[in-house]
Amino acid sequence: MAVTDAARGGTATAIAILKQRFGERVQTGEAIRRQHANTVTWLPNEPPDAVVWPTSTDDVREIVELARTHRVPIVPFGAGTSLEGHVNAPYGGLSIDFAQMDNILTVNERDLDCVVQPGVSRRKLNDYLRDLGLFFPVDPGAEEATIGGMAATRASGTTAVRYGTMRENVLNITAVMADGSLVRTAQRARKSSAGYDLTRLMVGSEGTLGVITELTVRLYGIPEVTLAAVCPFVTIEGACNSVIQAIQLGLGLARMELLDEVQVHAINVHSKLGLEERPMLFLEFHGTEVGARDQVKLFEEIARSEGAIRFDWAEKEEDRRRLWKARHDAYWAAKTTWPGRNGIATDVCVPISRLAECVLETQEDIKRSGIVAPIVGHVGDGNFHSTPMVDPDNPKDIEAVKGFLERLAARALAMEGTCTGEHGVGQGKRKYLKAEHGAGVSVMRSIKAALDPLNIMNPGKTIPDL
Amino acid sequence: MAVTDAARGGTATAIAILKQRFGERVQTGEAIRRQHANTVTWLPNEPPDAVVWPTSTDDVREIVELARTHRVPIVPFGAGTSLEGHVNAPYGGLSIDFAQMDNILTVNERDLDCVVQPGVSRRKLNDYLRDLGLFFPVDPGAEEATIGGMAATRASGTTAVRYGTMRENVLNITAVMADGSLVRTAQRARKSSAGYDLTRLMVGSEGTLGVITELTVRLYGIPEVTLAAVCPFVTIEGACNSVIQAIQLGLGLARMELLDEVQVHAINVHSKLGLEERPMLFLEFHGTEVGARDQVKLFEEIARSEGAIRFDWAEKEEDRRRLWKARHDAYWAAKTTWPGRNGIATDVCVPISRLAECVLETQEDIKRSGIVAPIVGHVGDGNFHSTPMVDPDNPKDIEAVKGFLERLAARALAMEGTCTGEHGVGQGKRKYLKAEHGAGVSVMRSIKAALDPLNIMNPGKTIPDL
Repeated sequence: MAVTDAARGGTATAIAILKQRFGERVQTGEAIRRQHANTVTWLPNEPPDAVVWPTSTDDVREIVELARTHRVPIVPFGAGTSLEGHVNAPYGGLSIDFAQMDNILTVNERDLDCVVQPGVSRRKLNDYLRDLGLFFPVDPGAEEATIGGMAATRASGTTAVRYGTMRENVLNITAVMADGSLVRTAQRARKSSAGYDLTRLMVGSEGTLGVITELTVRLYGIPEVTLAAVCPFVTIEGACNSVIQAIQLGLGLARMELLDEVQVHAINVHSKLGLEERPMLFLEFHGTEVGARDQVKLFEEIARSEGAIRFDWAEKEEDRRRLWKARHDAYWAAKTTWPGRNGIATDVCVPISRLAECVLETQEDIKRSGIVAPIVGHVGDGNFHSTPMVDPDNPKDIEAVKGFLERLAARALAMEGTCTGEHGVGQGKRKYLKAEHGAGVSVMRSIKAALDPLNIMNPGKTIPDL
Repeated sequence: MAVTDAARGGTATAIAILKQRFGERVQTGEAIRRQHANTVTWLPNEPPDAVVWPTSTDDVREIVELARTHRVPIVPFGAGTSLEGHVNAPYGGLSIDFAQMDNILTVNERDLDCVVQPGVSRRKLNDYLRDLGLFFPVDPGAEEATIGGMAATRASGTTAVRYGTMRENVLNITAVMADGSLVRTAQRARKSSAGYDLTRLMVGSEGTLGVITELTVRLYGIPEVTLAAVCPFVTIEGACNSVIQAIQLGLGLARMELLDEVQVHAINVHSKLGLEERPMLFLEFHGTEVGARDQVKLFEEIARSEGAIRFDWAEKEEDRRRLWKARHDAYWAAKTTWPGRNGIATDVCVPISRLAECVLETQEDIKRSGIVAPIVGHVGDGNFHSTPMVDPDNPKDIEAVKGFLERLAARALAMEGTCTGEHGVGQGKRKYLKAEHGAGVSVMRSIKAALDPLNIMNPGKTIPDL
């Protein structure tokens, strides 16, 4: 599915036309182009030929039309916080930066939904919603991540166990498809059985099927009470078993984050916390005054029977914020703790019954490989991250990490899991897709070919080459 | 996308080969063929040419291979409880009846999921799960509905507001695709961002993309406490407003069913209940002892401020069962109350803020049209059913109902809703799809053509003809 050099010949023409049309909203300087390519992984930076800033759906339609006419690849760009090379431009082309399409268009309080442009960040959206007593729950960790980018990569994060991922929280998407048509994937009703689920087809398609220009997402009332706790365990199994039982009981915990000893150590170093360096759960309970305290009580009973050492409650909002900031800073904590090294964030997801086993085998593998790699996970979903800290000047270290990443993906697949729970495929994980999906990859390829026969929509991503 | 007569020439050959291979598991008697076509709507009965009962995925692969070779349409058949002509065979062909593929293959208690064959009914599954303290929540009303059929039609029902629809509760699907390949759409992990969401593509595709041969679905722990109540209101707006506020507060009500006066009357006649004939909510609360009672208390406060006349609690399981049986018998209640008439069950779904308005306008329309049509709705989702009771010997009545159905779909679309919240498209609602999806219909058509170029998979369903 490679874009041929001949096809790329149109790029210069397309950029010239774009400049006439969009003026300063088209840029071709190297620094800007490099900023719009991948930065957070060890994948090479592959800059686009130009960056363009649309301000409307009509602008996007014009850009797609031009790209189609001149066979120029298109790479949608939100905040650039994705981790698997989604925004790289291996075949050049146009990066479409949604920074100027960041309006919150409508909030429907009674329906608990809102209509936004794709460039709105989750921080901006939640700042706006706070006074209405509402919030948008999906929390991938990067506050600047945009709603459009989160939908495109099927992001999730710490609250997915209670509120779902982008899969459950996008009600509809308006997108410019490769043929230039404007599609709104669904109405604003909560559910529908009217035809193929185009919303879910677009969520997670990583810009390879169309360019998102508007979304309706679900909102929730800010809970009456939010309680948070830190809970160290004797073993990782104990932590996982506690969570399994809590889910079976139907306790609606909003966040259940597992940190291994190495990650706790890094957080202590970075955030100056005095946490016990053991396997640990960071917990958050949402509910009514009575309901949330009841959950807490039940969870504490379960956890103590599974080897919880103690509960440290953070009832005050500032303590809670400090806790979750420490959790969200996990990556930076590792950077502080192992200075000079680059963190290669990866993730897998397995059925929760296999989580403890998968984490323990992974810790063993880390030790055997002689690398450093803290682990933190969304334990309620069976999803965890490992972030090998690589010395970029040490080829042996790099090789060791590469082997580790391959084994981690294979381990997850062998446990009926997935090579990525939430980071997406991008460029980095295309090589695992055949092992995970078998003949399903052909189905994906057929859909891609049917909807984007010229392969101009983020080529080189998601679907492995034949 | 019509199957040509020439293409149908192979049917006789295919049936002859099938008989050699499957013996008594292929039947061509007219009665059996008619039973496998549509019965519950006023759509004409269009029987298949033969019915075949596979017992394994390999059997299904053989059947699909044969159908492909001889260009014979395939119509998957679960329990035949769908309402929009999904199992009709307008181009003849083979009905694949999954009655002999009804095994529960694995229950993963710790993961809260299970692997089943498509012919398992929801009743059988829940009977099996009860002793494990687990349940499968999706409840479309028909106890004999099969899990395969429910996935194919994206079924939901009374519990969707708390537990989601089949969209949220299917973890993966194994299907034989039109090209004969066997695809497993996902692993067993709770979430994944590895490629296009083939699970959600298959859920709701109504057999037009492939034949489901196995599914993994989510389970839940049976709640510690279940409380039910009946709550009559002065107005429909009051009932809807109560539900909106309860959802904003995050009360996890498991069921919130709205019945209009006409439906309550029919239930009184049929189930010999003495319910006040007013707009009414049937409610169910799931939770821990403390949590559920707290929800009840908060809901009661809200409801009283919105004109609830009183709360009748059904704490005993037998009372609760009687209540929900009465709700599930809504269709039969109407049949009893208006004998000699056929009920034409239809459904639409709108944003919940528009629900009261949509129901009231629909009631007005019913009066103006001079027809009888009770209304019952899954109010938490904005989804409601209207079931015109048609005198089959009165052409004027039939015409009046046809006009009513068209206006109901148009009304829902005008309120940003969908022409069907849970019944599906089948044959009956194809005509509304263009109005609902616009250019999205072309996307669906491209996907269908790419994955089933011979159009053998349930032709004449879901996607409107060009």
